[in-house]
Amino acid sequence: MSELMIKNLLKTIADITGEVDGAFNLRSNGCGVERRSSENIIITPKEDKPGIDITVKPNTKNETVYIPVVITEDNVNDLVYNDFYIGENSDVTIVAGCGIHNDGCGTSEHDGIHTFYIGKNAKVKYGEKHYGEGSSESTRILNPTTIVHMEEDSYYEMDMTQIKGVNSTKRETEAFLGKGAKLIINEKLMTHDEQIAHSNVKCNLNGEDSILQIISRSVAKDKSVQVFHPIAIGNDNCKAHVQCDSIIMDKAKVSSIPEIQANHTDAQIVHEAAIGRINNEQLLKLETFGLSEEEAEEVIVNAFLS
Amino acid sequence: MSELMIKNLLKTIADITGEVDGAFNLRSNGCGVERRSSENIIITPKEDKPGIDITVKPNTKNETVYIPVVITEDNVNDLVYNDFYIGENSDVTIVAGCGIHNDGCGTSEHDGIHTFYIGKNAKVKYGEKHYGEGSSESTRILNPTTIVHMEEDSYYEMDMTQIKGVNSTKRETEAFLGKGAKLIINEKLMTHDEQIAHSNVKCNLNGEDSILQIISRSVAKDKSVQVFHPIAIGNDNCKAHVQCDSIIMDKAKVSSIPEIQANHTDAQIVHEAAIGRINNEQLLKLETFGLSEEEAEEVIVNAFLS
Repeated sequence: MSELMIKNLLKTIADITGEVDGAFNLRSNGCGVERRSSENIIITPKEDKPGIDITVKPNTKNETVYIPVVITEDNVNDLVYNDFYIGENSDVTIVAGCGIHNDGCGTSEHDGIHTFYIGKNAKVKYGEKHYGEGSSESTRILNPTTIVHMEEDSYYEMDMTQIKGVNSTKRETEAFLGKGAKLIINEKLMTHDEQIAHSNVKCNLNGEDSILQIISRSVAKDKSVQVFHPIAIGNDNCKAHVQCDSIIMDKAKVSSIPEIQANHTDAQIVHEAAIGRINNEQLLKLETFGLSEEEAEEVIVNAFLS
Repeated sequence: MSELMIKNLLKTIADITGEVDGAFNLRSNGCGVERRSSENIIITPKEDKPGIDITVKPNTKNETVYIPVVITEDNVNDLVYNDFYIGENSDVTIVAGCGIHNDGCGTSEHDGIHTFYIGKNAKVKYGEKHYGEGSSESTRILNPTTIVHMEEDSYYEMDMTQIKGVNSTKRETEAFLGKGAKLIINEKLMTHDEQIAHSNVKCNLNGEDSILQIISRSVAKDKSVQVFHPIAIGNDNCKAHVQCDSIIMDKAKVSSIPEIQANHTDAQIVHEAAIGRINNEQLLKLETFGLSEEEAEEVIVNAFLS
């Protein structure tokens, strides 16, 4: 039973359906259960605290490392520190994510503290999906902390998605951009029932010609509450664009508190935010095609978050 | 000399060049020096604290009340409470504003606490200009607090401008919108030298079909610092649009922290903010017409704030 659960969770959070190529680390219920380095991507367990170091050798191209986390037990509190050292001129993909299946009545929590050191001219794509399932009496908590240090001309694209089933999340992200660094953050988040989501993102554009783009999209259903607080700070000649769009449904509440700070004449920072209900015209159109109101809402929400 | 000063200040802050028609209250160096009610707009001094009550009778149409404040002395700390009771179905204009001329080396400060009670279906246009001048050793401080209560279907348009010469300002504005109320806030603000400006605006859209529009434009020159923190809270079926645009020059710093909160499914709230340097193409075009860089900047800044 637990193996099937893990299989399903891995498919949902990391699109893993069988054996994967390349470096791999699976953490399950607070322990590393499978670990494999590749020639260019070395995974070593930390000795002083839970977690791993992932070291990508310079000039590594077109490789992927998978580091999924699953929890299938009740009353697990998993705190883990993962550090990523990305070598110069490399071009790699990191697939992370955490899935919790809790059939009990207690709390399962995963707090992942990720620190990235992205070398000169390196290019990284990072994907992270969060998902919870199980009994309605259980509580599933995911609190990711992400710290990103970007060297000259590096590129980092982060896709951070909360699919569903997460009772509470507090997401903390901070980035420091060097000269010519480019950071793209795509956040997608759905809450339902009485779930709570807080997302704080602070980006320090310290280097000349650094570029930031944050696109955050969320849907809040039922009585859920969401708070977004992105901060873009321009300390040199730089460009930043921050966009937050939220669909609010039922009795949900959404706050968006974007902060833009220009500390340099050549900092160009733009922010846009919108909170509103689901598009009525789209709903009507889908309903005339024969969909029920719930089905039509589902289609629109999925399109908005995809 | 002082009379000429006052004349010039009145022209700058309230466009007053001679005798004015209608209700009038002039406050100078912390004292009421001239007061005149009209048939429909009654001005009475407060008995328990400094300040006046301005009462507009219901159905008053197309009348204007002037309530300028001037300070021409050093070391004045003027705190005043003005309450405005705007009768139902009236349609009036209020011209406020504060000008400080300080030739000394101390501080002249005016803190105006304005509370508006805007009756059903009333329409009010409010203009307020802030201006400082005098010796470079003097400090000129203006801290306006504005509280607005809007009844059903009332309309309120506020133009709040800080022209120049204000060393420090802390602006606090809070509004409560009833059913069908519409509030327009136009803020224009210029800082230079080492001036500091903080502007907090909090609008509570409590009534069905209430509408809010905030347009804030600012220019920060030299080493000045500006912080904007508008908050739009949608508690019912309502629409809000908040826009903050800032031009940053020299060594200035600008922060914009707009907050939008939707506590109702039918709240539609949109925010846009941009901070950037002066448009280079416009500068070049004006310079090819023979303007110096400083002259060209002046033209663009004035157009942006007009």
